[in-house]
Amino acid sequence: MRYLEEKMVVLSKLAANGRAKSGKNNSSVCFVSGSGEFSGVNKIAAKVRKDVERVTGALPNQVEWSESGKVSGASDAESFVIFGTVGKSAIISALAEKRIINLDNVKGKREVYSFTVVKQSDIPGLEKPALIIAGSDKRGTIYGLFHISELLGVSPLVDWAGVLPAHKDRIVLTEKDNFVSKEPSVKYRGFFINDEWPAFGNWTMHNYGGFNAKMYEHVFELLLRMKGNYLWPAMWSARFSEDGPGLLNAELADEYGVIMGASHHEPCCRNGEEYKYLRGKDSIYGDAWNFRANREGITRFWEDGLKRSGKFESVITVGMRGEADTAILGKNATLKDNIDLLRDVLKTQNGLIKKYVNADLDKVPRMLALYKEVEPYFYGDKDTKGLMGDPELDGVTLMLCEDNHGHLRTVPTEEMRNHKGGYGMYYHFDYHGWPYSYEWTNTTSLPEVKEQMCAAYEFGIRELWIVNVGDIFSNEFPLSYFLNLAYDYEKYSDLDYTTEQYTKEWTDFQFASLKKSERSLIASVLTRYTKLARMRRTECIKPDTFHPVNFGESDMILAEAEKIIADVEKLNRALKKRIVPESLYAGFYSQVYFPAAGTMNVLRLQLTSGKNRWYAEHSILAANPLCAKIRKYLEFDKSLVRELDTVDGGRWYAMGWSEHIGFQNWNEEDNQLPVEVKTAGANKPRIVVWLDGDSSVSIGQDWTRRILRLNAFRNPEVSEVYLNIATASALPFKFEIKTNKKWISFDTTKGEVSPKNLLQKVAVRINRKLLAKDGNKDETPYIGVFGVNESAPKTLVPIEVDVRPLCDASLPKGELPAGTFVQTGDYISIEAEHFVRNVAANGAAFKVLPGYGKTLSAIKAFPVTAWFPTAAQTENAPNAPKARASAENSSHAPFVEYAFALDEAGSMNFDFYLSPLNPVSKKNLLQFVAEVNGAKILKDVVPPTFAVGDDQQPWGDDIANNIRISTVTAQCKAGLNILRVYPVTPAFVLEKIVIHAENKPMPYSYLGAPETYRTPKN
Amino acid sequence: MRYLEEKMVVLSKLAANGRAKSGKNNSSVCFVSGSGEFSGVNKIAAKVRKDVERVTGALPNQVEWSESGKVSGASDAESFVIFGTVGKSAIISALAEKRIINLDNVKGKREVYSFTVVKQSDIPGLEKPALIIAGSDKRGTIYGLFHISELLGVSPLVDWAGVLPAHKDRIVLTEKDNFVSKEPSVKYRGFFINDEWPAFGNWTMHNYGGFNAKMYEHVFELLLRMKGNYLWPAMWSARFSEDGPGLLNAELADEYGVIMGASHHEPCCRNGEEYKYLRGKDSIYGDAWNFRANREGITRFWEDGLKRSGKFESVITVGMRGEADTAILGKNATLKDNIDLLRDVLKTQNGLIKKYVNADLDKVPRMLALYKEVEPYFYGDKDTKGLMGDPELDGVTLMLCEDNHGHLRTVPTEEMRNHKGGYGMYYHFDYHGWPYSYEWTNTTSLPEVKEQMCAAYEFGIRELWIVNVGDIFSNEFPLSYFLNLAYDYEKYSDLDYTTEQYTKEWTDFQFASLKKSERSLIASVLTRYTKLARMRRTECIKPDTFHPVNFGESDMILAEAEKIIADVEKLNRALKKRIVPESLYAGFYSQVYFPAAGTMNVLRLQLTSGKNRWYAEHSILAANPLCAKIRKYLEFDKSLVRELDTVDGGRWYAMGWSEHIGFQNWNEEDNQLPVEVKTAGANKPRIVVWLDGDSSVSIGQDWTRRILRLNAFRNPEVSEVYLNIATASALPFKFEIKTNKKWISFDTTKGEVSPKNLLQKVAVRINRKLLAKDGNKDETPYIGVFGVNESAPKTLVPIEVDVRPLCDASLPKGELPAGTFVQTGDYISIEAEHFVRNVAANGAAFKVLPGYGKTLSAIKAFPVTAWFPTAAQTENAPNAPKARASAENSSHAPFVEYAFALDEAGSMNFDFYLSPLNPVSKKNLLQFVAEVNGAKILKDVVPPTFAVGDDQQPWGDDIANNIRISTVTAQCKAGLNILRVYPVTPAFVLEKIVIHAENKPMPYSYLGAPETYRTPKN
Repeated sequence: MRYLEEKMVVLSKLAANGRAKSGKNNSSVCFVSGSGEFSGVNKIAAKVRKDVERVTGALPNQVEWSESGKVSGASDAESFVIFGTVGKSAIISALAEKRIINLDNVKGKREVYSFTVVKQSDIPGLEKPALIIAGSDKRGTIYGLFHISELLGVSPLVDWAGVLPAHKDRIVLTEKDNFVSKEPSVKYRGFFINDEWPAFGNWTMHNYGGFNAKMYEHVFELLLRMKGNYLWPAMWSARFSEDGPGLLNAELADEYGVIMGASHHEPCCRNGEEYKYLRGKDSIYGDAWNFRANREGITRFWEDGLKRSGKFESVITVGMRGEADTAILGKNATLKDNIDLLRDVLKTQNGLIKKYVNADLDKVPRMLALYKEVEPYFYGDKDTKGLMGDPELDGVTLMLCEDNHGHLRTVPTEEMRNHKGGYGMYYHFDYHGWPYSYEWTNTTSLPEVKEQMCAAYEFGIRELWIVNVGDIFSNEFPLSYFLNLAYDYEKYSDLDYTTEQYTKEWTDFQFASLKKSERSLIASVLTRYTKLARMRRTECIKPDTFHPVNFGESDMILAEAEKIIADVEKLNRALKKRIVPESLYAGFYSQVYFPAAGTMNVLRLQLTSGKNRWYAEHSILAANPLCAKIRKYLEFDKSLVRELDTVDGGRWYAMGWSEHIGFQNWNEEDNQLPVEVKTAGANKPRIVVWLDGDSSVSIGQDWTRRILRLNAFRNPEVSEVYLNIATASALPFKFEIKTNKKWISFDTTKGEVSPKNLLQKVAVRINRKLLAKDGNKDETPYIGVFGVNESAPKTLVPIEVDVRPLCDASLPKGELPAGTFVQTGDYISIEAEHFVRNVAANGAAFKVLPGYGKTLSAIKAFPVTAWFPTAAQTENAPNAPKARASAENSSHAPFVEYAFALDEAGSMNFDFYLSPLNPVSKKNLLQFVAEVNGAKILKDVVPPTFAVGDDQQPWGDDIANNIRISTVTAQCKAGLNILRVYPVTPAFVLEKIVIHAENKPMPYSYLGAPETYRTPKN
Repeated sequence: MRYLEEKMVVLSKLAANGRAKSGKNNSSVCFVSGSGEFSGVNKIAAKVRKDVERVTGALPNQVEWSESGKVSGASDAESFVIFGTVGKSAIISALAEKRIINLDNVKGKREVYSFTVVKQSDIPGLEKPALIIAGSDKRGTIYGLFHISELLGVSPLVDWAGVLPAHKDRIVLTEKDNFVSKEPSVKYRGFFINDEWPAFGNWTMHNYGGFNAKMYEHVFELLLRMKGNYLWPAMWSARFSEDGPGLLNAELADEYGVIMGASHHEPCCRNGEEYKYLRGKDSIYGDAWNFRANREGITRFWEDGLKRSGKFESVITVGMRGEADTAILGKNATLKDNIDLLRDVLKTQNGLIKKYVNADLDKVPRMLALYKEVEPYFYGDKDTKGLMGDPELDGVTLMLCEDNHGHLRTVPTEEMRNHKGGYGMYYHFDYHGWPYSYEWTNTTSLPEVKEQMCAAYEFGIRELWIVNVGDIFSNEFPLSYFLNLAYDYEKYSDLDYTTEQYTKEWTDFQFASLKKSERSLIASVLTRYTKLARMRRTECIKPDTFHPVNFGESDMILAEAEKIIADVEKLNRALKKRIVPESLYAGFYSQVYFPAAGTMNVLRLQLTSGKNRWYAEHSILAANPLCAKIRKYLEFDKSLVRELDTVDGGRWYAMGWSEHIGFQNWNEEDNQLPVEVKTAGANKPRIVVWLDGDSSVSIGQDWTRRILRLNAFRNPEVSEVYLNIATASALPFKFEIKTNKKWISFDTTKGEVSPKNLLQKVAVRINRKLLAKDGNKDETPYIGVFGVNESAPKTLVPIEVDVRPLCDASLPKGELPAGTFVQTGDYISIEAEHFVRNVAANGAAFKVLPGYGKTLSAIKAFPVTAWFPTAAQTENAPNAPKARASAENSSHAPFVEYAFALDEAGSMNFDFYLSPLNPVSKKNLLQFVAEVNGAKILKDVVPPTFAVGDDQQPWGDDIANNIRISTVTAQCKAGLNILRVYPVTPAFVLEKIVIHAENKPMPYSYLGAPETYRTPKN
């Protein structure tokens, strides 16, 4: 009886006497709703009770309290969970009246709930400890209920993905858990099921028989558990308002408080597919999706849509696009034609909405998507006024869209931010279109989502956030983050709360029942695989994307991909053994194993194919065993997709069916699986020799001999380098390795390559102590790989070794700042976060975005909305270049400073590796300033003609490469040089800087040269 | 005794009584030389007697007649062959004295012999019928002796290549055979054994133990039998004057009358390799091949060379080059430095020659090669006078060189032609250098040799012709032609005596013992394989040289190559069965089988590899069976080379060892054998569809569907076209073919492609009668290939059929000349010889060069030395373009006229496919005039900076491609157009013209589009 003495609610299977209760509703707690409550709320309560059972093994009973005061079935409960919606629930009214609960911070709020544990409710028949959840509205109560699940450790994915919670015998809630929730940061928060064939479509046909309410029941639950409230249903072959069957989908959504929208081209509660079914020669809707030619039919089509669905809670799409994601008028229409047409459409639609939904248009959430071709209709051009500020758009939420690949396009300027109706953002975790589609499995980077969605919020886009999640499957993880950020912007936008930390916490929560080491490994896998997968989307990786040799790129990525696969295989084996079917395994499989193993397998497949080709191109026989690997990886891919069909009894059937290898076009058609290339080698004994990281090869024969150059030892941190000796014929080849220097040694000095030993890697080592004592510094150090064969062509591969002292050796001690990048080879490569100084100005400063981008991280100036048009000006040079920058703001600019030291003076290229973000305004400006030894250079990152869209370059290539390289050329000195980087416009996110002589282009690699040597921190 | 009654000499085994003679010297004829005769002549007589034995089975005896009148051993002879050299031979003197022979046309001549059959010689003891051969000099007598062999039907290759003659019981010579030979057209005629490793070098080490007299015995015999007289010996590791052993080589040459030269960089009877052996710190010759630094040593080296070898008949090389085919001074030397040095060298050498060889320099044949870098030293430049006209060069034969690839460089201008000493030409059937080497087996085209060597002769190059024959092996056939032409220019230069006819006669002569059908097949094989092999040299063919699909190029060549291989395999089987070892088989194998099968196998290998790649690139599974073919062809190549080592007891051991597949560089190093590419195909059923000859493919799926276009039926001569339907996955794919037109039919209208039927070729046929009746001409004719599968992606490949009437249909009948090329597709292609008019001017006219070039033939204006600088002028346009042409000659120019008719007017490109010849003078002019509908365009084929040499472009690419495409753009009319082509400079050889719209580039092919439709001859 101890429990009753405190403010404490226990969710447990045990009765107060410590014995397990028996029977169906065998929990010690009883849920209580009030009469008048929303039916949807009660349905959600049932899901939460199920969660209690999932965790404790005991299913709580639920009873209804009415003003009559009678409750039945609650007598044996030891505590209560009382829930209800303010203004709807009789019991909440009663509790408030009795001042058991205080609704001051709840009433009138949006989607807010209070969570109050009381010693006893003071309600007759319920005089026991109670948790009282009072929601400000339907979703407030629902979120309050799901907050119980959260406290129970139940994942929002529990129903959708089978991510089952850890068992606990009892959960105790006390007044420490009391709180009042906040209003969500973003008003409409949701996702869009899209590109649903072949995966989602076949999945729902197979598991539910259609796009019906049986399926949507699960989708709605997923959305609400994630504290979302807004959904765009599947729309390519589905008709949400017809497939329920009938209105069942829409009715169920409304009951649950799920606000329905329709995608950007489906106005007035009509699905695009609907018209296809209803149109025809004799149709009352006519037979043309054309507001000019078939105004009457189209208007009636909309009218009937609003009549049918206007009663449900919706954000009604307005505007009009062509069918199937195309422009509304043909190619010959002028901008003005289009704008006039769209205005006419809006006027018509607003009229219909007034008539059939609500005469007060302000009460009707409406949305116009500024997607693709609609965007210019909104902005107009210099000759044609756009729809911006048009009375028909008053109160309409303007949905701005990113570029389908995760990068915001224009954002509201300060003057635009007051638009009544506010702004929305349509974001993508999945896309079907140019320059490439990404639909198979999650390749989203949380740091990138965070950076862009925070920017969106800061620029005032707070009314509506929707994200295209494709088939949902495997995108639940980034979706969690997206909806968390939308719900509680302050918490999740914090730069100190890294996405890596988020990932750890997310993993710990989802997989609480696993061992700590397993959870930690899962979090690590999620962080690592998404990093690799986002370097380039799975679908558009090709055998030549990464370089098979240069900078060791291929080997490095291959090793990481293999490690991730090994990690998830290990987890998979362990979990498969331990966990019974229908349990957490489905969650692990869908959220971790499948996307990580799947994407990393495609990556290793393409990397292996690239290596296979490179070897074969040089007649290197090591190409041949890679053919079997290519086959194996292709087979692994197929088996993975087949396995997914059967996991957890077919829970994910068809979800892996999207093509995902070797896209030649933006879509899967004509995709090319890697081929196997086999070489017979040369007729005579031959070797091919190269150094790790450098694709210069030498076969060492007289006429074509190439001297290889080894300069890696100039880097004081490198003491071992690998030499590759590969046979390029089926005949054995004996070699010996010699050097003229005692301080160079090898792990082997002779050997034989042959079909039995295709490739010999030889470690070359340096002894720096002996080097220091070398009395003959003028003699060029060299290594020779000599053929020692009776009948092979005479072979000698010469390797010159560069161990010249670094330029800092001749500088006075302490002249170089700690962290100076000192040249050791042909170039210097700097990760953006490795500046030596970070100087703020007027409250603005660069900050590091951890984990962002293709390599280490990135930096970006905050506040993110700030412009620094005067950054290029210097005191000494008042007439410094202004280029296309116009002064919106005259504050001084912050900067970061990098120190680097060169062997020789010369004209150097600075390749700035930038995130391929888009200019934030119609001015099309994206600028920064590079200052080299005091001389400022204002750089336009994109040309004035820059545009986003199908067939637009350089945008398309940058998007595919996930980088935009912007090069500045400047004269440098021998020895120390200082580079400062200033932001000018927003959307300047810097990942890396590569410095090399202007006349010495960098060898190809996908990631750019890896970071080079810098002096240690003092 | 009938024989004695006539002027008749019988070579026979039979005695007069008809019974076979027995014993060693069992012939009915006896050879008689005179005392005082050259020993070499007697040795040659022995070879001719051996020939008699080879033919008749009976070896004639030989006796010597001296002024004493005694002969022994001739008593049982029934007739005599009396031979001797005028001024040397006692018996010839005696016969002349008795007026049995008349020496008026022999005496004092160069290399002339008389051939006289007399009833009896009137010499005591020799009073029987006799053939009397009187030579004007040693070689005159030798050629006269070998003329017997010729009459016997013995091939010049009898000893060298085992080309054995047919057996004849007896050969009868009568006075009808009497004649006096002509002086050879070219004074020094010979070949150069070069690039002798690995083939020739290993061959002679294996068969003769070195580069010694045992081996040269055969080489000299070959040369003399071919009526050559001049030889450059092997020189890369050999020392002709040391390897005999000792002077044996030189002595033997001198004995046989073989005039020795040394290659272009081996002056003063010294071999380049000699210096390597003699140099050294303590050497009297010093230790530097440097006339500046080691003048004394080098001078002594030359001096000792002349002392040693000056006594032998030689053409002494003068001048000096760097070691191993390189320039003499370093990169920093000026042109003047080099010229001064060379003049100094010449002066020194001339001094030494006067001292040690002959004080009268005019009596010493000397040669300076204007090879590679030496050429500019001769011509100088605008600032520096070259060596032309220098007294040190007076009487020195100036050897001009072609570009190593068979194209003359500068030739003597009219003013230069009087140079005392005359000119020589160094030509190549084999080359080791840039842009590619060709050393394996014969790929020389007789029409090209004829065209260029005749031009050389016409330009006055008549003193010396030498050809680099590499290892000799397999180049004997073109060498025969080369030496024939040099010996009897008038006969072999005749355009009416085609090289094809020459080939037939050559074959009939070599292989007289074979059946007529076999001989005819061999001649055809030689003509056909050399044509194909010369399109691009074997070594530098790559998988992408020919296009696997466009214009059916690959299929066409593949079929021809396969046919040639089948032909020689058939011959080989027949001959192997029939012919005993050591017989004609070795000759057939070396001259026909090996080069034809070898080159054609490499061709089919590379073509198959190209197809393999193209298929694999499109995921077409038909790629996979080609991998086995690639392996098979590679193995065939190896087995051929192995077999050659054993043929005829090792006669050709090592002669096939040169690498010859997939050169990446100019030499064999790093050559790449074709790889095998295997594709797994796509995961889903997929087809790839294309039309024969057009590499546009369509997979027929929704987003990327490409419409194919079939316009082949516009050509009235085409009634059937093939459609290719290939599976691009391992899953079966059913298709149906439909059309909207009754006049289109197919050999199959449905089918399935699958791993069992990878590629379905469907014949599409047109019924022109039904087409004529088609009442619905406005409807676009189309063909659809439909997928009819349950689960494959929806597939429809649409093919639009273009059957628009040709433009001539609307023209008045007879408006078009017969032979007008009427447009049927996107372009018109014209073989140069298919002009409609050929108009001469002032005795100059175009003539056809049959069999010349990459496709049908070529045309060239004669006389070949003529310039037509006024060709671009017209009466109406006196100020017509003069470009860089300067008037050397003001005659009007001849022209050819082509008629072509276009569908539409427009700006058209005329791609002139020219033989990649070089400008004939230092002016660097290569020009022609294209006149389109009366408007003349003067075209410079090469830029003013054009140069021949290492790394020179466009020369290098043109040489490799064996074509130079020169494009002229002109406006054309719809309907009939007239193109006239005029020569301006020499060296204009036109093979083909392709006409296409300026804005519509031609699809890639190596040969250019094949000839298109032209109206029939009336």
